[in-house]
Amino acid sequence: MSNITKKVSWSSRGDELGPVGEGTPLLNGSEQPRHSRQESARGQPKEIPHNSKLLSLKYESLDYDNSENQLFLEEERRMSFTGFRCLEISRWLICGLIGVLTGLIACFIDIVVEKVARYKYEAIKQNIERFTEVGGLSISLILWAVLNFSFVMVGSILVAFFEPVAAGSGIPQIKCYLNGVKIPRVVRLKTLVIKVCGVICSVIGGLAVGKEGPMIHSGAVVAAGVSQGRSTTLKKDLMIFEYFRRDTEKRDFVSAGAAAGVSAAFGAPVGGVLFSLEEGASFWNQMLTWRIFFASMISTFTLNFFLSISHNNTGDLSNPGLINFGRFESENLNYNLYEIPLFIAMGAIGGVLGALFNFLNYWLTIFRIRYVHRPCLQVMEAMLVAAVTASVSFTMIYFSNDCQPLDSEHAEEYPLQLFCADGEYNSMATTFFNTPEKSVRSLFHNQPGTYNPLTLGLFTITYFFLACWTYGLAVSAGVFIPSLLIGAAWGRLCGIWLASLASAGSIWADPGKYALIGAAAQLGGIVRMTLSLTVILVEATGNVTYGLPIMLVLLTAKIVGDYFQEGLYDIHIKLQSVPFLHWEAPATSHWLTTREVMSSPVTCLNRIEKVGTIVDVLSNTSTNHNGFPVVVQVSENDEPSKLCGLILRSQLIVLLKHKVFVELAGSRLTRRKLQLKDFRDAYPRFPPIQSIHVSQDERECLMDLTEFMNPTPYTVTQETSLPRVFKLFRALGLRHLVVIDDANRVRVLNLYKSKVFSRKLKIVTMILFRWLDW
Amino acid sequence: MSNITKKVSWSSRGDELGPVGEGTPLLNGSEQPRHSRQESARGQPKEIPHNSKLLSLKYESLDYDNSENQLFLEEERRMSFTGFRCLEISRWLICGLIGVLTGLIACFIDIVVEKVARYKYEAIKQNIERFTEVGGLSISLILWAVLNFSFVMVGSILVAFFEPVAAGSGIPQIKCYLNGVKIPRVVRLKTLVIKVCGVICSVIGGLAVGKEGPMIHSGAVVAAGVSQGRSTTLKKDLMIFEYFRRDTEKRDFVSAGAAAGVSAAFGAPVGGVLFSLEEGASFWNQMLTWRIFFASMISTFTLNFFLSISHNNTGDLSNPGLINFGRFESENLNYNLYEIPLFIAMGAIGGVLGALFNFLNYWLTIFRIRYVHRPCLQVMEAMLVAAVTASVSFTMIYFSNDCQPLDSEHAEEYPLQLFCADGEYNSMATTFFNTPEKSVRSLFHNQPGTYNPLTLGLFTITYFFLACWTYGLAVSAGVFIPSLLIGAAWGRLCGIWLASLASAGSIWADPGKYALIGAAAQLGGIVRMTLSLTVILVEATGNVTYGLPIMLVLLTAKIVGDYFQEGLYDIHIKLQSVPFLHWEAPATSHWLTTREVMSSPVTCLNRIEKVGTIVDVLSNTSTNHNGFPVVVQVSENDEPSKLCGLILRSQLIVLLKHKVFVELAGSRLTRRKLQLKDFRDAYPRFPPIQSIHVSQDERECLMDLTEFMNPTPYTVTQETSLPRVFKLFRALGLRHLVVIDDANRVRVLNLYKSKVFSRKLKIVTMILFRWLDW
Repeated sequence: MSNITKKVSWSSRGDELGPVGEGTPLLNGSEQPRHSRQESARGQPKEIPHNSKLLSLKYESLDYDNSENQLFLEEERRMSFTGFRCLEISRWLICGLIGVLTGLIACFIDIVVEKVARYKYEAIKQNIERFTEVGGLSISLILWAVLNFSFVMVGSILVAFFEPVAAGSGIPQIKCYLNGVKIPRVVRLKTLVIKVCGVICSVIGGLAVGKEGPMIHSGAVVAAGVSQGRSTTLKKDLMIFEYFRRDTEKRDFVSAGAAAGVSAAFGAPVGGVLFSLEEGASFWNQMLTWRIFFASMISTFTLNFFLSISHNNTGDLSNPGLINFGRFESENLNYNLYEIPLFIAMGAIGGVLGALFNFLNYWLTIFRIRYVHRPCLQVMEAMLVAAVTASVSFTMIYFSNDCQPLDSEHAEEYPLQLFCADGEYNSMATTFFNTPEKSVRSLFHNQPGTYNPLTLGLFTITYFFLACWTYGLAVSAGVFIPSLLIGAAWGRLCGIWLASLASAGSIWADPGKYALIGAAAQLGGIVRMTLSLTVILVEATGNVTYGLPIMLVLLTAKIVGDYFQEGLYDIHIKLQSVPFLHWEAPATSHWLTTREVMSSPVTCLNRIEKVGTIVDVLSNTSTNHNGFPVVVQVSENDEPSKLCGLILRSQLIVLLKHKVFVELAGSRLTRRKLQLKDFRDAYPRFPPIQSIHVSQDERECLMDLTEFMNPTPYTVTQETSLPRVFKLFRALGLRHLVVIDDANRVRVLNLYKSKVFSRKLKIVTMILFRWLDW
Repeated sequence: MSNITKKVSWSSRGDELGPVGEGTPLLNGSEQPRHSRQESARGQPKEIPHNSKLLSLKYESLDYDNSENQLFLEEERRMSFTGFRCLEISRWLICGLIGVLTGLIACFIDIVVEKVARYKYEAIKQNIERFTEVGGLSISLILWAVLNFSFVMVGSILVAFFEPVAAGSGIPQIKCYLNGVKIPRVVRLKTLVIKVCGVICSVIGGLAVGKEGPMIHSGAVVAAGVSQGRSTTLKKDLMIFEYFRRDTEKRDFVSAGAAAGVSAAFGAPVGGVLFSLEEGASFWNQMLTWRIFFASMISTFTLNFFLSISHNNTGDLSNPGLINFGRFESENLNYNLYEIPLFIAMGAIGGVLGALFNFLNYWLTIFRIRYVHRPCLQVMEAMLVAAVTASVSFTMIYFSNDCQPLDSEHAEEYPLQLFCADGEYNSMATTFFNTPEKSVRSLFHNQPGTYNPLTLGLFTITYFFLACWTYGLAVSAGVFIPSLLIGAAWGRLCGIWLASLASAGSIWADPGKYALIGAAAQLGGIVRMTLSLTVILVEATGNVTYGLPIMLVLLTAKIVGDYFQEGLYDIHIKLQSVPFLHWEAPATSHWLTTREVMSSPVTCLNRIEKVGTIVDVLSNTSTNHNGFPVVVQVSENDEPSKLCGLILRSQLIVLLKHKVFVELAGSRLTRRKLQLKDFRDAYPRFPPIQSIHVSQDERECLMDLTEFMNPTPYTVTQETSLPRVFKLFRALGLRHLVVIDDANRVRVLNLYKSKVFSRKLKIVTMILFRWLDW
């Protein structure tokens, strides 16, 4: 059903941008999207701003390929073996530091949330207890709603007004970063601060959110900051780690940071490593992976250690992550062969429910992009959701008459007696009246019979819609925990139902097992992660026995879910029009060659080029390229010029800023030779070309690019098939690839006339995906 | 100490092959090594045959890069989306099958070893008991020695006479395969059969070996067989999975098989995946990884399930792997912060001991290569080791007076009373008189006080030398378990010593914990695996708590060990002169460019070439290349020809075999067009050129290579730096890379004259490693 709708929606977009498919250049200046966004804000809501282009121009690629120019090679050749050893040691140090800081942040979030949530729930509990007997529970409701309301308001204002990129879980953004796309401001210190404060507010505010997703983003920001040895925001440069100031190195550290984040969130260091690899593995390098693992281990250890101190239990390392699935006893863990079909069926349910979730969220997000784009509107929506969440929870608890005996064995943290008899508590309240992490644990571990089916059913439905509504709000929050909670609820329901079907054999007696399987199914159905998610869940349960069932469930959920709809993160990445590079070229793309996907004609520069030309080229918003092939004229007559290198926009900017002009060199003999350090100092915030002033005299000067260009860019011929080029692009993490002519075919006309295709490849790929895959 | 010796040894070799460093071609025909080997067998033992060349020519590379010729592209373009879907499903099916078969093999080995070992030990035990009182224990010794002797003889004869490549653990061979080097006969059915029988014999024969390493090899063979849908040995072609008959696909499946093997051996599915990735990750692809994981999971599950049946405990899935570390209770598992320095110190000890082990084994292996190269000598050595092992064990047990009370709590399987009082048993016997897997478990889990320090100390020393002597014998056997056992012994010794130092605090009370750490340290010190080993050990203990200590220990062991000597597997790979491609180009290799490492002059073929020329080129043993650039002549005058493609030796062989000649085409109109199927049918055992008969008439015919060559090979220019080329080679799994001239520099002379460097790159890299790194 959703399949058809999606196709229509894509093709309608396809119509809007008909010419794209026919090869006209898309790159029309970076101002465009912002402009059209404002336009739509002023009353043309018909067009979805983000989708007015297939790919947004807000985003730039990372240069994962080193520019091996003369300066770089000289530096590398000068460096001794000891120098390289020192660099390696610094890398380890940085990874350790990333782990420690990420762990500390996780610890901070956890402690603050625990403490404040305790005050909140205690206050509400007392209030409810006071009013249960005498009537006037509506006052309790108002108290609850207002408390949630205020926290969410603070969190939402922070996000919406100060740093919109801190909204959501941040996982799509980090996926993009690791894939090689730089989302603006995503790894800045300010983003981190807002993210941390925002997630604390939204979790305490009682929204259907988790604090785990944001940890991944936080870890990535920490890594990006620490590895550069300076903060532009704080205007502080420690003058260390200068070697690492380029995209290649930074991206490696960011993957370590993301892994450390996963590790701290779920106590899953191996899962963290696999997450980073799954998302960003253009690179796979033994040493790098080992460093990433080190960062992950340190991160979970730091968290564990400081949480043990805060729990007055120093040295008891039993809290490896923010979410703790609790200890699964081995007798409950065993499963029988005949249960496996049941698990697979639950995986299928999870896939369907996940697709439904994603489908609803997809339309909700489109609605939001169209109508809820103003910060104040976003804050209001978040507050509305907070109030509704509180009211719904309260109503559910109020009308539930599922009373359970309160014995010492399952120590509910905030047992609400409400209308139950003395010594009993309201069972619905254990799910709603608690932080979601605790509710998940209760669903996994409470004794059989703790929940009655109606309670669970109602809770599943309510929480499903609440979580769906919540994801995408302008608050910092993750979707992992709500998914687990929904899944655990219906999983437990399945367990109870199965137990009632079968005779009361011991194997059926534990609905907690089914809660775990349900949680995995639901989470898998929503996010569609594969290997890493399996490992994360296995590590979170602390027991490897459940590996096979969890894997089967996640696999089924993914297959079933993919039949209807993409994963939630991919949907959000698409909706933000990010030029995301997939794993493989579409299976049926062998009939496409490079000729059809490259951007042409290309803007070339001469090896010795007039400054004026360079400034014009850089300022030209209609050919807003970031890499330019450098060519030399072979002879004076009509013969075309030959490729001799590739130079990046960022390098040209630095050259212009330092006025490395040939004419000037004659007049000023003391001119400092430009060094790699100058490029590193400018990294990563290269000024725009508009901010560089070049006088009319200087425009007539010449610039010698020989030293600065990469003399050996990777090249392909026009005849290369798309999958082959794709593989090259993916394996080497390229941003630009120069296409040279197959000289024996078009030799006379434009021998060696080089053409660049950069992200354009991605555009075509995406079109292919849309037209071929769906 | 060993460091200096090694340097000398390398440099002495460097002298032997002086010209290699200066760029003379090494590829002198594949017959050479066998020849020189026989020569040395006939009385020139001074030269180590394997090292007479830096790289052996026995080995060929795998073509991981698809040859995208017209046939291939046509097939791909013809294929519908459903076709690709079917292929994907077949891949999953194959992986499932690989998992099941690998699991079954593991199960078979385990059951046979258990049953036969039980008979053996029971018989010896009864014999010993009979003679303890009356005297005459030498008869028991002889019985023991003869039993071991016979089993080892059978195993050794199988290996030495029938399939020498089945010797050892097979891990170095699989590492090479995944790295892209084909060791002859390594993935054949015969090898598998010999391997399985051999490992059963050597484990029952009481050698200091494990059955885990061979599982990895077995899994790989299973994968290589199943994925091809036929067996050349059995002469059976099922006509399925034909699409997968090429190196790219086969290698992917072999990595799944290796992972399944690890998974079955250690009950470590995630560790298996990581092992495959660490060793062979030129590729990393989400779907592939997921399939590998699937195979691993199925494999451990199959093993678990069938073992549970064989233990009469169907459905109790408590045996995920061949080695079972037993259940670590959580109270023993906790460690304190102040123990971490102790762990690190133990890691350092492990590193030193591991390096010593490798050092001794290195010289032993060189000795063996020189003097013990005849199969009958190899069998005799194996039998000698078996007898010595039995005698030493017996002596140790005989002279030990470490008696322990025999209570019901620790159920020794074969408690030997010997000279102990009634109700007691000889503690030394628990380590020697059992399969090594059981001994490891006893060391991990037996109560404090079970072993006295002298027993452990003597055992460590004895077993260390026995294991060192054993590895490299002509028997199928792994080194994992002996390493674990040595480490567990001295680790437990450390634990006991620490406990005696400290006041009897509860934290020190468990030497089993130190046994685990010691085992990890020793294993890490010997094999130097990193991430995957951590995960394997964590999965084998079944508890994630020990992740950080194990990682720290392995890291320390690796750093310390690498200071002295390489890892054991790498040593053996080097000694076999395999052109192994490392992870990265040496750090200080930026001063080398492609010009210096490429093989030149290169042998080119014309697009339309005389058959005689092709036959001559292929038969020429002095330029024994496997890939040839195809060129076209631009004009008749002196201007050089231009690159238009790359063709492989295997393709040419198939073309010659089918006589795809242009002249013949005119005469026979019904000539069948050659299809991809013809190439696939010949894969992987392409006949040598000598077996193809080309008549004198046919030699004058022409062959049109256009359809069959890869028209878009990857190319680089001569100026490209070595690290850049290395990265390309590694990331894409290349075998050949065409170097084209930088046209503007040597334009007149040899524009476009292409040069190939294939494995030559590896040679240079290895030289670099030797000269720069050490």
